Amino acid sequence: MSVLVAFALTLNLATLPTVAVGISNLLNPLPSWHSGSAKSAIIDFVDQITDEASSDYIPVEDRIAVFDNDGTLWSERPLIQGAFIMSQLQQKAAKDPTIMQSSLIQALAQGDVAYLYKATAADITNLLAVLNTGVSEVEFNQEVEAFFKTATHPQLNVPYTELTFKPMVELLEYLRVNGFQTWICSGGGVNFMRVVSEQLYGIPPQQVIGSSVQKEFVPEEGKFVLTRTDKLGSFNDKSVKPVNIDLHIGKYPVFAAGNVKSGGDIAMLTYSQERSGPSFQMIVNHDDAEREFAYTEPDNASLNAATANGWQIVSIKQDWKTVFSYQEHEKD
Amino acid sequence: MSVLVAFALTLNLATLPTVAVGISNLLNPLPSWHSGSAKSAIIDFVDQITDEASSDYIPVEDRIAVFDNDGTLWSERPLIQGAFIMSQLQQKAAKDPTIMQSSLIQALAQGDVAYLYKATAADITNLLAVLNTGVSEVEFNQEVEAFFKTATHPQLNVPYTELTFKPMVELLEYLRVNGFQTWICSGGGVNFMRVVSEQLYGIPPQQVIGSSVQKEFVPEEGKFVLTRTDKLGSFNDKSVKPVNIDLHIGKYPVFAAGNVKSGGDIAMLTYSQERSGPSFQMIVNHDDAEREFAYTEPDNASLNAATANGWQIVSIKQDWKTVFSYQEHEKD
Repeated sequence: MSVLVAFALTLNLATLPTVAVGISNLLNPLPSWHSGSAKSAIIDFVDQITDEASSDYIPVEDRIAVFDNDGTLWSERPLIQGAFIMSQLQQKAAKDPTIMQSSLIQALAQGDVAYLYKATAADITNLLAVLNTGVSEVEFNQEVEAFFKTATHPQLNVPYTELTFKPMVELLEYLRVNGFQTWICSGGGVNFMRVVSEQLYGIPPQQVIGSSVQKEFVPEEGKFVLTRTDKLGSFNDKSVKPVNIDLHIGKYPVFAAGNVKSGGDIAMLTYSQERSGPSFQMIVNHDDAEREFAYTEPDNASLNAATANGWQIVSIKQDWKTVFSYQEHEKD
Repeated sequence: MSVLVAFALTLNLATLPTVAVGISNLLNPLPSWHSGSAKSAIIDFVDQITDEASSDYIPVEDRIAVFDNDGTLWSERPLIQGAFIMSQLQQKAAKDPTIMQSSLIQALAQGDVAYLYKATAADITNLLAVLNTGVSEVEFNQEVEAFFKTATHPQLNVPYTELTFKPMVELLEYLRVNGFQTWICSGGGVNFMRVVSEQLYGIPPQQVIGSSVQKEFVPEEGKFVLTRTDKLGSFNDKSVKPVNIDLHIGKYPVFAAGNVKSGGDIAMLTYSQERSGPSFQMIVNHDDAEREFAYTEPDNASLNAATANGWQIVSIKQDWKTVFSYQEHEKD
């Protein structure tokens, strides 16, 4: 047994910081959440499915949690990837102003991201061609890294990396401490999110599912290079989310979190709830104009689905003590 | 510190069987491999990249290992999924003989799997329509489970689940004990492999990359159901393997293993070798007519690439003490 103990300790030395965070999270879980029905519902669910004596017990290998990103894990006013794409387009337009002739690019330039839903396939291909032509995966990652180092939010005047929701980062940690594997499943670009997912959320690249462009492994200067193309691979929104969860994970999520804006997470939460056995779904409601932004869905579909299906609604205003970490420091 | 120790032990109780296997693997790694250049090369590489004092040290989060399945982790004479598809087609042909009119299905019925490469898009769609029409993911999984419970290899007379290569299963364990995350990246169908990947290889469904059909999340009898369609999603072979590794993992593999047959793994191994920093590539050569099967590639491309690029060639005849576990029991 002493060999086993020694070996177990060796294995865990590498994860010591995570373990330390984990213990404080066990003693006082979700510290940035107000006491109330949302916090209680989460903790009760996790207690129940991790209790081996319970008929609702879920083995560790099935504890899959999926999170939307924009508006669920970080703020989406403006869409952060939209700001990145705009910075790329501005750089490219300085060299070649004709790229701005596309109606989609003109709409994006005016902040009308919703135009993506109205765009034709030709518009999308044109945008991807402008963004990706001749760009290798390595170069793309460098562009994303440069953006996050310098760009700041237009109203809040902080780097975009400060716009993660502290209570949600705590929730990710809390679930991991309780044996969950945490995943992102977002409409955002998979390669864009992967650059910061480990740093911001403790989620490694292989647990990020997102929208993607098709790529090719093609000869270039005597070697083969993985290269982005102008063809859309997958637009990971609405009913495509369950399809991609199945492709990447192959298991029903036990825990699924989305937010109010466009109904983009309803299918993912519906899919999670269809697993046989217990599951938990939550919808973040953006109702705090003072600390973040207040907005609703035109058709109220996400909140209606939450009410109809018994999903937990999380109110930023009422359920979160802190929204962004940087706001706490401002109070100090 | 005592809290940390107790917590570390708690975390590892769930993985105790794996730890026990791991320790025996540490004391006597790769027991079914003969001493020789292949076994030494693998152990030397792993020792080197796990040594924190070495300039070749690779942190745990980057230790990604990818394995082809057919011919690399289990035998591919015949292709096991081919046998499954044939069993499905025979069941369906009993009800509707007209399905056999497709030239692709006739070729498959005669064991000519290579015809898939000559098949037209219409042939493939027709095959997928025959196999998938009206089949939900849950029903498909049940069909695969039923196949593995009853079907046996035509010459070897053992269940197909007995046809994993014992030295390769040991290699997977050895890499995991050394901090690697092990993945399958195979031309086989992702949903087919996932049914048995945990049981046979200790690889969970979310670490299996394979060929796929497109699916839809569609309304059916008052709920939404994830359903297979007749459209090919991805044929995960040759240059598509690096593309799908990037899509699913987002990191260069440190360790990549394939086999001689059709050159299907050359691109994946090339991609792995392009990572900056150390990496290891190996090709299994099927040269043991007595214990498995002996076959070569028409153009010898895989072995030529191995020689040109310094990939380790693994000879089943010379490097493996045991091929299949069941053969060991026969000797007892």
